[in-house]
Amino acid sequence: MNRSLRKIFEEAPRRATVVDVSARDGLQAEPVVLTPERRAAWVRAVLSAGVPEVEAASFVSPSRVPQMAGAARVLAELADVADRLWVLVPNRTGAEQALEAGARNLVCVVSATETHSEENLGRSTAQVLSDLEKMVPLLREARVRSRAAVSMAWVDPVEGIVPRRQVLDLCSRLTAMGFEELTLCDTHGGASPRGVSELIEELKAVAPPEALGLHLHDTFGAAGANALMGLLLGVTRLDASLAGLGGCPFAPGARGNIATEQLVHLLHSLSVGTGISEEALREVRDECLRQLGDDRARRLPRRGPPGLL
Amino acid sequence: MNRSLRKIFEEAPRRATVVDVSARDGLQAEPVVLTPERRAAWVRAVLSAGVPEVEAASFVSPSRVPQMAGAARVLAELADVADRLWVLVPNRTGAEQALEAGARNLVCVVSATETHSEENLGRSTAQVLSDLEKMVPLLREARVRSRAAVSMAWVDPVEGIVPRRQVLDLCSRLTAMGFEELTLCDTHGGASPRGVSELIEELKAVAPPEALGLHLHDTFGAAGANALMGLLLGVTRLDASLAGLGGCPFAPGARGNIATEQLVHLLHSLSVGTGISEEALREVRDECLRQLGDDRARRLPRRGPPGLL
Repeated sequence: MNRSLRKIFEEAPRRATVVDVSARDGLQAEPVVLTPERRAAWVRAVLSAGVPEVEAASFVSPSRVPQMAGAARVLAELADVADRLWVLVPNRTGAEQALEAGARNLVCVVSATETHSEENLGRSTAQVLSDLEKMVPLLREARVRSRAAVSMAWVDPVEGIVPRRQVLDLCSRLTAMGFEELTLCDTHGGASPRGVSELIEELKAVAPPEALGLHLHDTFGAAGANALMGLLLGVTRLDASLAGLGGCPFAPGARGNIATEQLVHLLHSLSVGTGISEEALREVRDECLRQLGDDRARRLPRRGPPGLL
Repeated sequence: MNRSLRKIFEEAPRRATVVDVSARDGLQAEPVVLTPERRAAWVRAVLSAGVPEVEAASFVSPSRVPQMAGAARVLAELADVADRLWVLVPNRTGAEQALEAGARNLVCVVSATETHSEENLGRSTAQVLSDLEKMVPLLREARVRSRAAVSMAWVDPVEGIVPRRQVLDLCSRLTAMGFEELTLCDTHGGASPRGVSELIEELKAVAPPEALGLHLHDTFGAAGANALMGLLLGVTRLDASLAGLGGCPFAPGARGNIATEQLVHLLHSLSVGTGISEEALREVRDECLRQLGDDRARRLPRRGPPGLL
């Protein structure tokens, strides 16, 4: 093999953490609204398939995102596995509600573009950062783990290509605030393998690949290649959603996440361990699609390939 | 950026040839049978979008693959663009029919596994090779261009992982016969980026990357990552099918090809030129799906990202 490429494969991580976000990002753009109990059962099934971490709920306003109503109820149903659950909080109120509901791991959100910040969070990036600054002591006091997710880290459907400097500065601000984990989100799906590689590389001064996660939408079919690039550069935390469900209600045109079952297969085919059963995952996926009245399952493979190459 | 990876990107090809196989591989597993005239119009639209080469027809038995009936008629409709068309021929009879119909470019098929050879071509790999040996002088005499497509080059749904030696030997035989172009087919979709890289690398003694093409099915979501790997190793010819249509009727469980519009977007996002208009391609895709009565279009993005990163 090409020497450089062989070296890259040899040095690639041997283990990755897949974070299933089906019950949050996967559901928030679906027309069918599931009860908190249903969502909790779904999360439990995903965990049972071996997925180590799940994004289980979002403490957003139910009037804006009705699919996420009853987040506290979802957590109550899953109190015994709270350590493996992440919840999204868009602001201080959301964080307080999440902590009250017993959340142990919080995802705080900030957009790299003003347009998306206003649409998604209802305020400017500067305001969001200022709010986050006030939230950090709260999170510390509550001894919860937290991550900062940076939306639109590459391309924004309205603003176009996001200047690299803008993303780097934002990430610097977040690590300076005390966020030890960052998730780079390709919220609209327009990132390329080259863009993914460059950002990870340029971020090294701010946050090492081990501190990063990737949240990749597959709108244009590049998510698998983007995930591969991230992995080869040492990023081992990857968000995904069963059957590729998902999309941001406030990012026009965005399609679903990289499919969890496809990401897991890709990782396994690269000899990267995940602890996840592909078969169990497919079963959960099919059940979820049934609950959503989604006919996509008939087009999805019933089983994996007969061997990993 | 990681030095090795930067080097790989710098040395990556700047141009690629996308071969759209929608009208052949894309259609052969669809329930709707389109008339030869419809298929010819489809091919013409794909060519108009800037796709340099199209696999337009297959000279197989209409009783086995009714979707491909009337291949000669398709070619007759497209006589003015014959140089840009490829046709698939499964045997000597098919080749004779193709030549008679004015085909200028022939794809000959051989399977790397006995199971698929028997299912797909009705005879053993040895028999197919022996037939091909007799066909080569015929092709030479007719002064047509030819390629050999190797099915199941990585994983067979029945036999499992295909021994590398088996594929290398088969490719050696084909180049020794005079085939200057080989297409490596992941017919079932079970190949991994590592497997793709290794085969391309090990084939170098037999055929350089410039002589290779990749035909990747996306059954398990790895096709984009596989295409990226091939490209980074110098393979610049890639088959694809609009909307990811396709599947081999004789490869149980195989799903469609990598989607042409997604592959083209991936290539463009890597600054690899294709000469193809993504917008025109999406229009052709939507029209094709309408003709097939396929509701997938409603889930596909109407336009590309607002910038290439």
